[in-house]
Amino acid sequence: MSDTRKSFSGGRGAAGKATGPSRRQLLTGGLATGAGIAMAGLARAAGAPKGDPAITEIQEWNQYLGDGVDANPYGMPSSYEKDVIRRNVAWLTADVQSSINFTPLHELDGIITPNGLCFERHHGGVADIDPAMHRLMINGLVDTPLVFTMEDLKRFPRENRLYFLECAANSGMEWRGAQLNGCQFTHGMVHCVMYTGVPLRYVLEEAGVKTAGKWILAEGADASAMTRSIPLEKALDDCLLAFKMNGEALRPEQGYPLRLVVPGWEGNMWIKWLRRIEVGDKPWQQREETSKYTDLLADGKARRFTWEMEVKSVITSPSPQAPVTHGRGPLVITGLAWSGGGRIKRVDVTVDGGRNWKTARIDGPSLPKAMHRFYLDIDWDGSELFLQSRAIDEKGFVQPTKDELRAARGENSIYHNNGIQTWYVASNGTVENVEIS
Amino acid sequence: MSDTRKSFSGGRGAAGKATGPSRRQLLTGGLATGAGIAMAGLARAAGAPKGDPAITEIQEWNQYLGDGVDANPYGMPSSYEKDVIRRNVAWLTADVQSSINFTPLHELDGIITPNGLCFERHHGGVADIDPAMHRLMINGLVDTPLVFTMEDLKRFPRENRLYFLECAANSGMEWRGAQLNGCQFTHGMVHCVMYTGVPLRYVLEEAGVKTAGKWILAEGADASAMTRSIPLEKALDDCLLAFKMNGEALRPEQGYPLRLVVPGWEGNMWIKWLRRIEVGDKPWQQREETSKYTDLLADGKARRFTWEMEVKSVITSPSPQAPVTHGRGPLVITGLAWSGGGRIKRVDVTVDGGRNWKTARIDGPSLPKAMHRFYLDIDWDGSELFLQSRAIDEKGFVQPTKDELRAARGENSIYHNNGIQTWYVASNGTVENVEIS
Repeated sequence: MSDTRKSFSGGRGAAGKATGPSRRQLLTGGLATGAGIAMAGLARAAGAPKGDPAITEIQEWNQYLGDGVDANPYGMPSSYEKDVIRRNVAWLTADVQSSINFTPLHELDGIITPNGLCFERHHGGVADIDPAMHRLMINGLVDTPLVFTMEDLKRFPRENRLYFLECAANSGMEWRGAQLNGCQFTHGMVHCVMYTGVPLRYVLEEAGVKTAGKWILAEGADASAMTRSIPLEKALDDCLLAFKMNGEALRPEQGYPLRLVVPGWEGNMWIKWLRRIEVGDKPWQQREETSKYTDLLADGKARRFTWEMEVKSVITSPSPQAPVTHGRGPLVITGLAWSGGGRIKRVDVTVDGGRNWKTARIDGPSLPKAMHRFYLDIDWDGSELFLQSRAIDEKGFVQPTKDELRAARGENSIYHNNGIQTWYVASNGTVENVEIS
Repeated sequence: MSDTRKSFSGGRGAAGKATGPSRRQLLTGGLATGAGIAMAGLARAAGAPKGDPAITEIQEWNQYLGDGVDANPYGMPSSYEKDVIRRNVAWLTADVQSSINFTPLHELDGIITPNGLCFERHHGGVADIDPAMHRLMINGLVDTPLVFTMEDLKRFPRENRLYFLECAANSGMEWRGAQLNGCQFTHGMVHCVMYTGVPLRYVLEEAGVKTAGKWILAEGADASAMTRSIPLEKALDDCLLAFKMNGEALRPEQGYPLRLVVPGWEGNMWIKWLRRIEVGDKPWQQREETSKYTDLLADGKARRFTWEMEVKSVITSPSPQAPVTHGRGPLVITGLAWSGGGRIKRVDVTVDGGRNWKTARIDGPSLPKAMHRFYLDIDWDGSELFLQSRAIDEKGFVQPTKDELRAARGENSIYHNNGIQTWYVASNGTVENVEIS
C-alpha cells in the first residue's frame, strides 16, 4: 500500500452501518424514486439515464493503485473481516493449551470451512513438527512392523474426500441449558474440509494384520500423546492418513504433518500429529475413552464407544451473532446439516417453534459424511420468530429435540448432543438462544 | 509459544533431507532388517517387539506444551511450508500493480485451492474496498435501474458452486516455447474454489431486462475500472454475484466484496470489485475484448469472443519444481484436469512421450466446470520418463498437442493455449520442461 494512498484513507470509520433499501423496497420500486437518497450519495445512479456511468461519489479505490501482486505471497482476508475469527471461552478450561476455540459458523456460507477458521481442540498445545523428522510406526499384531517417513506415505495411492469433523462435546454445554450466545459457541466445534490422504488400509495391508488383530490404537506425537482405540473394521473401511486439507498441507493445529481421518466419527478419534498405529486384539481403555468421551447417564452408568456423530443441524444465520439488520421483507434463513451416517436427505425449518415445518432447499454438493448447506428464503413480516432446523439423514434418522435426548440420557453428559436448537428473533431483528417446550 | 520451548528449538535446520526407505524397500522387507538404520535413529522401532513404544528419539514436540488456542485466531500454515506461496515473475510485466502471481500447483493436491494461494491478476492493484460503501448498480436497457448494497444482495436466494477460474493467458508463454521451469509458472493462472453467491438472473429479473437487451457490461470498482461484455444468455444461465469463496468472504485480490463468476469462461470476464452491470443491445468493444483477450492468428486477423476455456490438464507432480527425490519404486503421478465445457470424462497419461497411454484414476468429486484430480500410480524402474497428460471432457473434446494448436492458430497468440505439456524426468529424478514432436 503506497503512502499516497494511505493519506486518503479514513473512509471506513465514517461509513457507518449500511442502511440501504430492503429487497422489498426494491420490489415496490421505492428505490428508483426517493427512498434511495439516503444511500451514501450513490442513489442518484438509480434514476440515471442509460449510458451515464452514474457512480457519483468517487471512492479512493477508484482513484489510486492498490497493492501489487508482490504484496502478499500468502494471501489474507480483508481488514474489514477482522472480526471473522476463531474465538475461545476463557472460563471453559483451565489453560489455553488444553482448550478449544470455535469456528465462526455465523459468518460462513457454503459447505467448506477455510483452513484458518477451523476450530481447534488440543490437549497439550499445538505440536510444531518438522515433517522431515516425523515418522509413522505400524506395530503390534502385524507380520512386519514398519516405520514410514512422510515421503514414504506419499508414495501410496491417494484419495480426496470432503468430510465434516465434529468434536463429541460440540453443543455439550446446551445439555443443561447453558444457552451460549451464538452458534459459534453452541455449534462451532465442527468444520468441513477436503482431505487428501492415503487409505489407512493400504498401510495396514503392507504391514500385514495378523488374524488376532481386531483393533488399532492411534497415537499422536504431541505432548499429550493422545491415544484412541478404533475397531479394525473402521480402520480398513474409510479411514485416511491425511496430509492435505483444502489442497494445502494440514495446518499445525489440525495435526501437521499427518492426521488420522475417521469419517463420521467423533473428532477426538481423528488423532493429530499421528505417529503410531498399533494393532491389538482388544481396545486399550485409554483415558480418552474411559473417563473422557463416554456418556454418563442419569443412573450413573456410562455409554461408551459412542463414536458416530448422529444427524444434526443448526441455523447459522439469523443467529445471536448474526441478527437481522435489514428489517422486514426477504430474509435468507441458512444453516448447516451433517450426519456421521452418510448424506443428509432433508432439512426442515420452522419459524414458529415447531408448529409448522417447511422443507429447506439444500444447495451445493451432497456428499456422504460432509456438511450440507440449507436455505429457507422467506418474506419476513417483522413478527417475532422461533427458528429451528431438523435434519434427516439418508438412513432415515431424524434429529431429536433436546428434551427427547434428556429423557433418554439424563443431563450428566456433555457429549453427543445433536438436539434441535432454537433461536428467538425479536421484531427488531436481535436474536437470542432460547429453549421452548 | 513459551520461552522455555523456544530455548529447545533448533532441530529444523539440523534435520536435513529425509532419506527414508522407498516403499519398494518396505515391500521387500529391507527396512525391518538393516536398511532402516539410517532413518534418523527411529528405525530401531521397525524391528521392535510388540508392545514397545519404540519411538526412541524424543522430539521437542513430545516434551513441551505447544501454542494454545488463543495463539492464532485466524490460522496460518506451518513455518515448514513457508515456500508454498504464490510467486510472480519480475520480467513479465512493467509493474506489480498490473501483473500476475501464480498458484503453486506443484505443492497442492485435491481439487480445492486454499484462498491464500489463489493466483492474482489485476490491472490497477488490489482495491481495498469498504463493503459498507460498496454498491452494485444495474442500468441500461432495464425497466427499473437499481442500486444494491451488499446487504441487499444477501437477501436474494444463494447458490454454492465449485468452479475453476483460469486466466485466458495461462500457459501463454508456452506458445513459442518459453518452457518456464515449473507448472506454477506454465499453468498456475488457475484456481478452483467453492463460491457462494446470488444468481445474476435474479437481480436482472428484478430490474426487468428490456426486449432489446442482448448483452451486459460488467464493470469493476478498482482503479482500472475493468470492463467486459458478456452475452445476456450467459448472464441468465449460470453467472453468480459471489461474495464468499471457500466459505469465507472473498479475498481482496479476488474482488472483495463482490465478484462476477462466469463459469467455464476466461478469468478476465469474472469482474472483480463488481460495481455495475449495464444491459445493452451489442457488445461494448472495450479495450479488454479488442486489443487484449483476442487471439491474433498467423494471417494478422484475430479471433475474438473466445470465451470458453477448453479442455486442459497438467501433471503437477512430478514436475520441475517437484522432482522425484525417493528413487525407484512406487511413484505417484498426479495432476489436474478441467474444462469450460463441463465435467472431465477421462484423463490419459503417458510416461513415454505419447507412445503408450494409460487411463488415469480421477479421484474426488467430479463437478461441472470444476477441477478434477487425477492419479497414475506406477512402479518406476528409474529410467527416464517423458510425462504427458491428455484430458477428454464430457462433450468429447480432446486436449490437443501444442503443435496441433500452432498449426491451426500460428504463434502470435498468447491466449487459450490448452496444449499438452511435457515433463522430462531424468534418472536422478530431476524434471525439466521440454517439447517433443
